[in-house]
Amino acid sequence: MPPDLSLSSAPSSTVSAPPTSAAEAVPTSHEQPQQHQHQQTGQYRNHKRRTTQPELVDAISHPGDVRINVQGAFIVDEENGSTTPSSEPSSETSMSLQELEDGGYEHDGKDIRLPNHTQGVSHIAVDIGGSLAKLVYFTREHSSSEIGGRLNFVKFETDKIDTCIEFMRHLQAEHQTQNGSKPKDLCVMATGGGAFKYYDKIREALKVEVLREDEMECLIIGLDFFITEIPSEVFTYSEANPMSFVASPPSKTIYPYLLVNIGSGVSMIKVSGPRQYTRIGGTSLGGGTLWGLLSLLTGARNFDDMLKLAEKGDNTAVDMLVGDIYGMDYNKIGLKSTAIASSFGKVYKMKRAAEREAEDHGGLANGDHEHPSASSPLDPTSADPINVGNTKFKAEDISRSLLYAVSNNIGQIAYLHASAHNLEHIYFGGSFIGGHYQTMNTLSYAIKFWSKGEKKAYFLRHEGYLGAVGAFLKRQPRNWGRRGSMDGGPLPGEGFEGRDGNGPVWGR
Amino acid sequence: MPPDLSLSSAPSSTVSAPPTSAAEAVPTSHEQPQQHQHQQTGQYRNHKRRTTQPELVDAISHPGDVRINVQGAFIVDEENGSTTPSSEPSSETSMSLQELEDGGYEHDGKDIRLPNHTQGVSHIAVDIGGSLAKLVYFTREHSSSEIGGRLNFVKFETDKIDTCIEFMRHLQAEHQTQNGSKPKDLCVMATGGGAFKYYDKIREALKVEVLREDEMECLIIGLDFFITEIPSEVFTYSEANPMSFVASPPSKTIYPYLLVNIGSGVSMIKVSGPRQYTRIGGTSLGGGTLWGLLSLLTGARNFDDMLKLAEKGDNTAVDMLVGDIYGMDYNKIGLKSTAIASSFGKVYKMKRAAEREAEDHGGLANGDHEHPSASSPLDPTSADPINVGNTKFKAEDISRSLLYAVSNNIGQIAYLHASAHNLEHIYFGGSFIGGHYQTMNTLSYAIKFWSKGEKKAYFLRHEGYLGAVGAFLKRQPRNWGRRGSMDGGPLPGEGFEGRDGNGPVWGR
Repeated sequence: MPPDLSLSSAPSSTVSAPPTSAAEAVPTSHEQPQQHQHQQTGQYRNHKRRTTQPELVDAISHPGDVRINVQGAFIVDEENGSTTPSSEPSSETSMSLQELEDGGYEHDGKDIRLPNHTQGVSHIAVDIGGSLAKLVYFTREHSSSEIGGRLNFVKFETDKIDTCIEFMRHLQAEHQTQNGSKPKDLCVMATGGGAFKYYDKIREALKVEVLREDEMECLIIGLDFFITEIPSEVFTYSEANPMSFVASPPSKTIYPYLLVNIGSGVSMIKVSGPRQYTRIGGTSLGGGTLWGLLSLLTGARNFDDMLKLAEKGDNTAVDMLVGDIYGMDYNKIGLKSTAIASSFGKVYKMKRAAEREAEDHGGLANGDHEHPSASSPLDPTSADPINVGNTKFKAEDISRSLLYAVSNNIGQIAYLHASAHNLEHIYFGGSFIGGHYQTMNTLSYAIKFWSKGEKKAYFLRHEGYLGAVGAFLKRQPRNWGRRGSMDGGPLPGEGFEGRDGNGPVWGR
Repeated sequence: MPPDLSLSSAPSSTVSAPPTSAAEAVPTSHEQPQQHQHQQTGQYRNHKRRTTQPELVDAISHPGDVRINVQGAFIVDEENGSTTPSSEPSSETSMSLQELEDGGYEHDGKDIRLPNHTQGVSHIAVDIGGSLAKLVYFTREHSSSEIGGRLNFVKFETDKIDTCIEFMRHLQAEHQTQNGSKPKDLCVMATGGGAFKYYDKIREALKVEVLREDEMECLIIGLDFFITEIPSEVFTYSEANPMSFVASPPSKTIYPYLLVNIGSGVSMIKVSGPRQYTRIGGTSLGGGTLWGLLSLLTGARNFDDMLKLAEKGDNTAVDMLVGDIYGMDYNKIGLKSTAIASSFGKVYKMKRAAEREAEDHGGLANGDHEHPSASSPLDPTSADPINVGNTKFKAEDISRSLLYAVSNNIGQIAYLHASAHNLEHIYFGGSFIGGHYQTMNTLSYAIKFWSKGEKKAYFLRHEGYLGAVGAFLKRQPRNWGRRGSMDGGPLPGEGFEGRDGNGPVWGR
């Protein structure tokens, strides 16, 4: 059944009062007036000292009740996935690299350094989706020459939830070691369907409080944070410039916008203000569809293999193009001969033709002449062709065709919803994209094509962690310490002055 | 690439002047004034006599230049596909039933009887799509007790275009035998991509004039004809009443409406008046996608086998439901636990789980316990399960899931386009539907669901022949002799008086 088309906005969570003594608090000269007064408290110039015991006690006794100093925050590129020592699982849970890949546990690079945050953080956040569980947690920098800490991003296959819980248990132990706290003092913020499905399991395993947060709300809180606080996070894609960073919110205010979150399934969320959102649509044709069908159709073991196959494929070996039907362009309605008329439309025809050839001539039909792309047996991502009757179809071609089909379809539906709600900016999140150029190119092209260039597609480097980061930050008061980029605040330029020294603080 | 979103309406073809002597012409008291005068000429009461030689000569010397008397037209149900003798191919081209199915040539039942048309018809029409070629032609009734004739509907696989041409050659011979005309005198009206791709081939084979007509225009001409002229043609679907015929155009005027034509690919056409149309969208995820992927994934030999598989399948064995993610409903956004969150979303998870089980315990994982639907090996449409690693997936379940996915997706996109253009009535045409209840149920449900019951899905018994019938009729002057159901004419009741005796005539 199609998912529900609309729902009313969730009520904004209550904003708690700011602390009267706010260590780490840094004034930001451009906050909204009612927020500004919140900034005037605290010894806000004191950045270099270590966290004091009272602060730790305060943090520990109020789970999630801590201010994240994001001044000067930046992304640490560690494409090899290495992490700070303290974030690695302890020996009894550590795995070999092979196990990491096979076991469905992967530490993402792209940690976010928080050079000016030194306080203890007493919570971790996990977003448990249909296929993947995304975990975000804070760690101190261990090198004595550095203060501050970083946000770490780890993902697990949801079916390996036990590994995920074991990883959290390890963080819990780390937390005790560092802060001398009692186990119950680490709080787990959980969102996504798994926050409900595995609620009891997590509580019993960790003996801690598990705070469940709404999935959609966490997604937009996380996205707002990335858009407004993290440099070199949001970017647009074009073949000429695959990663053109958006230096500041794309307009005076980031609202309204459409978030298209592509996980196993797809949710489309209209965001009209901070924590003001409506799920206006979605489709069941998402990442799970691509992963599932390619599991059935190719030898690819994981998503990366599938993307590698797609990169080498030629979709025209299986897709029916306008030219295949017309023998030319269909100019009258502006369809070029190279346009895809029917995804996989050639397969049934070729299968039937091969069957007839075999019947008519008793010979073996071979579809290979229809498959220009070459197979390289030495490549692990090059699977054997699929035989249908006497016709062969290459895994590479099938993968590329399906990637195009799913991405184009999401792009068209996203455009139609954005158009119906007059939304110009479309952000694509979720683990489906995986920073893959073909996917982003297809989504960008679809939005540009259907909207005749009037709407724009935006991507994020932490695309898969919107919900987890949203859950991690949700306990922070709305807009407190945020840049003025929200609620029609100052102009983009002003909105980012904070980066020059007056960094924002996300507090209670 | 996505197909072009819009195009300007094609110019209406010039309406030729009415004949000064119009045999068979019947007055229709409720025509538009400017049309009415066309009706006042001719010996229009003379129904019973045979076609005269002068009329034949007139018809033959003007290809396609003949008036079709549709007074009292009705559908002849011949589900067994038998036809009038004269429409069968001559011995050298006739095939066994097995050959019909395998060779991609099938005579549709549901001929349309034209009891009051006795004149010769000097043209046949063919709509050659990406997968199927649809042929429409007129034959006399041979039983001496009957006058009039009928429209016959035959379809071929486009790859068997030679068989289609041979069939036309046979009709050409019949035409000569009956009318003593010369071969060149039979005119072929051709539309669809194949009209261009196979233009030379058809001309050379038949040595006749081939008139190519625009595909989209033919589709709407054919649909208008079926909506306004043929009783028991248009119907709505519901599980309680699978075929509830629409006794008259669904509103005072049938315009505007959306035509969703589902062939190998999908075209969505906004129709605002007679021959006033715009292709506003489409998707490459159509019939060709279902047929192609199920050819790769199941042992089904043809579309009927695939539909039979889908009827027996359980999509929840491969689809990820909201309940699979949440363990409950996601009430906050109104998603029931039974809603499909991700089509095929379970497959990758189950494959990975089975791999891990094999790794962890060295045992064989078997996914069958996840597959409630039973396999019946005695049934030819029951294929062997697909093994992915150690996990088995049933062809029946895969077929049902994909049928749901493609149909739901088309339904959502159709709704979004209809909503953007404020179109209430959505007609589904094309060979994809094939009168299949599951498909119509899914499309109807999707439209009802997304539009909250404000928009309605309509189906046709000749769904696959809109283009062919449109090409067959295109040479008739627009609206000439039509019922008043067009251009904001009389009310529905009046609009159908014609059936009580004042039957319409489609003429030059």
